Amino acid sequence: MIKFAAIGLDHRHIYEQVGRLLELGCECAGYWTDGDPQPLAGFVERFPQLHRVSDVNALYEDKTIDLIVTAAIPADRAGIAVRAMECGKDVMTDKPGCTTAADLERIKKAAKANSRIWSVNYSERFEVPCVQKAAELVAEGRIGQVVQTLGIGPHRLNKSTRPDWFFDSVQYGGILIDIASHQIDQYLFFTGSDDAQIASACIANYANSETPDLQDFGEIVLRNERSHGYIRVDWYTPDGLSTWGDGRLMLLGTEGYIELRKYIDIGGQQGTNHLFITDNNGIERMDCSTQPLPYYGHLVNDIRNRTDTAMCQDHCFKVMELAIEAQRLALNAA
Amino acid sequence: MIKFAAIGLDHRHIYEQVGRLLELGCECAGYWTDGDPQPLAGFVERFPQLHRVSDVNALYEDKTIDLIVTAAIPADRAGIAVRAMECGKDVMTDKPGCTTAADLERIKKAAKANSRIWSVNYSERFEVPCVQKAAELVAEGRIGQVVQTLGIGPHRLNKSTRPDWFFDSVQYGGILIDIASHQIDQYLFFTGSDDAQIASACIANYANSETPDLQDFGEIVLRNERSHGYIRVDWYTPDGLSTWGDGRLMLLGTEGYIELRKYIDIGGQQGTNHLFITDNNGIERMDCSTQPLPYYGHLVNDIRNRTDTAMCQDHCFKVMELAIEAQRLALNAA
Repeated sequence: MIKFAAIGLDHRHIYEQVGRLLELGCECAGYWTDGDPQPLAGFVERFPQLHRVSDVNALYEDKTIDLIVTAAIPADRAGIAVRAMECGKDVMTDKPGCTTAADLERIKKAAKANSRIWSVNYSERFEVPCVQKAAELVAEGRIGQVVQTLGIGPHRLNKSTRPDWFFDSVQYGGILIDIASHQIDQYLFFTGSDDAQIASACIANYANSETPDLQDFGEIVLRNERSHGYIRVDWYTPDGLSTWGDGRLMLLGTEGYIELRKYIDIGGQQGTNHLFITDNNGIERMDCSTQPLPYYGHLVNDIRNRTDTAMCQDHCFKVMELAIEAQRLALNAA
Repeated sequence: MIKFAAIGLDHRHIYEQVGRLLELGCECAGYWTDGDPQPLAGFVERFPQLHRVSDVNALYEDKTIDLIVTAAIPADRAGIAVRAMECGKDVMTDKPGCTTAADLERIKKAAKANSRIWSVNYSERFEVPCVQKAAELVAEGRIGQVVQTLGIGPHRLNKSTRPDWFFDSVQYGGILIDIASHQIDQYLFFTGSDDAQIASACIANYANSETPDLQDFGEIVLRNERSHGYIRVDWYTPDGLSTWGDGRLMLLGTEGYIELRKYIDIGGQQGTNHLFITDNNGIERMDCSTQPLPYYGHLVNDIRNRTDTAMCQDHCFKVMELAIEAQRLALNAA
């Protein structure tokens, strides 16, 4: 089984990244983080057995470590990934994988030069069972050709708990890079696309004038010769919602459509992972509770076997490339 | 009470247009239609007491008629409206109100020169109780500033029942003019906007290669300095849906959001007009069954009192202007 280490604990996504690897039997060689980021206390509580190292070089230089995972401040992730790959390690990073086009180029170069895996954990696909179920249904041809994906990613702001970097677009990368990248991944994946044009992209701040560099609204329109993608993200989730966001994904096919109410079915049934498929036979609500989440297992196998099954490497690069391009276009238009 | 006549019965929307005026006590002076369009038999069945005239001039020249209603072939509606207004009559037309920029200019000129009302019956707002309820909630400030409207308008094709003009974009106007105009109306209305730019517009035919001039998919992105609108329309409603389309409208506010499942709540409750509001207090599913539909009553009053309460005339012109511009941009991009 592989050995991994965590570098950078600035986002709570690190809990899943580390926890799921441990569940699979991977060994954690330790973790390093700068200072006392907000997620640290919860990390120590969840994983009291893990060892914090004071010198990050000890992790980079440990030849027995196969994989570095990171949920550092977004702008810092590229540097961590490049150094890790130069030290012969694969990388699994929280999204966004990086925040600038120059950083993405450095990452691509390091991955290629060192024959390393750079994997961005798009949790809104890889850690959501109903999305995996939808992938099965689409692969079976249940809704015909997927013409469009429509992804809505509202998020709760939780302003008082957020660190300074959260309000600095240089550090978080911008709303399209930070949270719309999830939906770009889903658009390319579900339409079977290698590439797309950004037909339109937009960012704004409508509700947070006291933190002007927090982009609280964003949208992207993607298009290629046979499919379309619309993405809307925001930080407006109201307090009355019992979860962090009413994330939706709608897949429009020529012979039917699928709607995912990923985290809540407002005014409907309890629980998460609500999948509705409507096709020529009728409307079906599907239970996704037993749907496996293969990303972590596949990634571990990829690391051992030097394969490319968890997420195609070119796809992974393309998602960040499109997110960075959308953010650039939106900034120019703003 | 006012007297009206119907000219052009090519779309079944004429049933509502005539039926609701009769319910209000308006007098129908008769109707004229060319040949035997598909909706005629149902019209005669619904309104056996009404008189079909053989010479349309008899209706235009009847000085006692206040209002002409039309659901003619879309490309013919402008000519009917202009002639009616030149004859001193107000007009209520099925959507789209016209299909070209030149026709819209003729209509504007005729309305102004003759001080007439030209009203497009946007049935997806005016005849849907939950949309009226949403308007009340927005006006009360329940979701703060409306940042975005997201409207989805899937339609069932019913290919075998459609007349030839349905497959000829010159006659039906194009999918954005024909059916996305509904959502442009709702975007401007719910965001309180007088105008917007078309940030992106697109049309395609993915599922109907044997009728290449049927645009079966379309989308529009609208934007102004304080709001956004996304519109998606298609002719892909699968046979398994028990109604013609799973039309949705989502209103994103800075302090909450509203979702309308206008005609069906897939996998949920029976009936129509499902309104869900989520704000800082929680999630509420609201009953809209008693919500009044004031459009027809207001229009009748406007005709009698020369007022502008059913739908602001400038708004009505702007909707068609934007729809025609979106269609033009989409054609250029195609």
